[in-house]
Amino acid sequence: MKENESRDIMKIGIIGGGSVGLLFSYYLSDLFDVTIYTRTKNQKDELLHNGLHLIESNKIHKKNIKAEVFDLWNGKEELTIIAVKQYQLSEIVMQIVKKQKENTNFLFLQNGMGHLKILKLLNSETIYVSTLEHGAYRKNLFTVEHNGIGQTKLALYRGDFNLPSSIFTIPKFPIIFETNYFEMLINKLVVNAIINPLTALLNVKNGVIVENENFLRVAHAVFVEIADVLNLENRERYFQQVIDVCQKTSENRSSMLKDLEAKNLTEIDAILGYILNEAELKKIETPICKTLYDFIKGSERLERN
Amino acid sequence: MKENESRDIMKIGIIGGGSVGLLFSYYLSDLFDVTIYTRTKNQKDELLHNGLHLIESNKIHKKNIKAEVFDLWNGKEELTIIAVKQYQLSEIVMQIVKKQKENTNFLFLQNGMGHLKILKLLNSETIYVSTLEHGAYRKNLFTVEHNGIGQTKLALYRGDFNLPSSIFTIPKFPIIFETNYFEMLINKLVVNAIINPLTALLNVKNGVIVENENFLRVAHAVFVEIADVLNLENRERYFQQVIDVCQKTSENRSSMLKDLEAKNLTEIDAILGYILNEAELKKIETPICKTLYDFIKGSERLERN
Repeated sequence: MKENESRDIMKIGIIGGGSVGLLFSYYLSDLFDVTIYTRTKNQKDELLHNGLHLIESNKIHKKNIKAEVFDLWNGKEELTIIAVKQYQLSEIVMQIVKKQKENTNFLFLQNGMGHLKILKLLNSETIYVSTLEHGAYRKNLFTVEHNGIGQTKLALYRGDFNLPSSIFTIPKFPIIFETNYFEMLINKLVVNAIINPLTALLNVKNGVIVENENFLRVAHAVFVEIADVLNLENRERYFQQVIDVCQKTSENRSSMLKDLEAKNLTEIDAILGYILNEAELKKIETPICKTLYDFIKGSERLERN
Repeated sequence: MKENESRDIMKIGIIGGGSVGLLFSYYLSDLFDVTIYTRTKNQKDELLHNGLHLIESNKIHKKNIKAEVFDLWNGKEELTIIAVKQYQLSEIVMQIVKKQKENTNFLFLQNGMGHLKILKLLNSETIYVSTLEHGAYRKNLFTVEHNGIGQTKLALYRGDFNLPSSIFTIPKFPIIFETNYFEMLINKLVVNAIINPLTALLNVKNGVIVENENFLRVAHAVFVEIADVLNLENRERYFQQVIDVCQKTSENRSSMLKDLEAKNLTEIDAILGYILNEAELKKIETPICKTLYDFIKGSERLERN
């Protein structure tokens, strides 16, 4: 009997078999008892048949994984991780409310702030939210490419911290605890609301936004609108963070750029959509954010030749 | 002796061997004695050696043409047509002021309004300005493809009309006289300032701007800023014209889009640059026009992979 098996290993259910769901499944199953819940029976079968593959530094790693269709989820794991796209979230949470039979905690992996009002529908005592910096790409139904190792930040949305501390010790998968979830999400929102739409619209890598003086000027103009809407204090600190992320990830193509290229829906509603809603509530004019929003929404609708 | 030769045929000098210069040279030489003035000796030699080729409806038409290097221009023709790009214009007009020995009239073919202040430097009595709708593409130094037959509108910027009326009778090259040059240029400016940057930025054909509701909303927001700056009356009439042009030329790729694709400089300074200057003079806020300007300027600077 291995040492691990003698302990009470935490059970985790991960809802969503996209790139982020597969990535978390792979790394968390090093330490925990993970089940992936997929939308389709096909993906479940592929995962059970082939195992879960992770490509990292040009090597393929393979492991057996438990998989189920989401229909069978009932919340029996101690922790349920929601790894679906923002625009699928309302539907999933409605299903969760219906299906949940056991007392599970939730961890949400969505970007932006748009999901906060949806979380309120859940009656779970402890809910975590997070921000991600990983670069991950799903190559097929059972293979995820981990091409950018980044931090996962985790914070309590409500309840008390109750995860095993080993979750902070997974190699190549650093997880950090943040004390203020709102500050954490706002920080990430500001960064995403500027870098994602601009890189997607202009079809450029992150670094170009700060290397090109015209694009940098637009980035700052967008930032000023956002800072007004979010009523940010010490605002230039936030903008410096945008610049830092562009520089540190200068060779990366943003998730929104990749989504447009792949003709997927983007997360624009969770990001700029949230800003525009807040702006409307507060009656603040945001002409540039509105324009960017329409550019991305319109681009989602394009049939490219 | 042909009938034509018995008359006093107007001499025309055309400065610029780009697509527009070659197009005008081809059609005007049906009726007039045309000399093209090129920047390079190489292009002059190619034109003299091969003749001027025009591709239209998949047929190649060929004619002999006079060509000279621009250095030898001195204004001896009755009419000098300036067919260089907006951003080359200041330099060319400085040269013209130095080189001009004879009393020639000028016709400017540039888009936008940016050239109006440059025209004031010339001491010629009669100056024409114009707007073009042709689709033309220079395939090589002596060949132009005429892939969209449109109107040329012509108006007096100053002086009296003194062109032979035959200029309005050239087949496949309709030229129309407009009485109010300012109105004519403003009309075209509004259309260009919206269609050109949006299509270039979004990499779409003209029609998409009105077919896509998000893009149409941006187009209208840009229009509102421009209408404020230009103090337009009956403003929705102008916007209707933008829509009409998008619909009539729905399959066309705008000149600015083509310029960006070919990594050429665009005419953004003559178009949105003019609007931004006026806005600054009048202290009117134009956040969206500024953003579009920076997007295009920044894109001109990009090294695409």
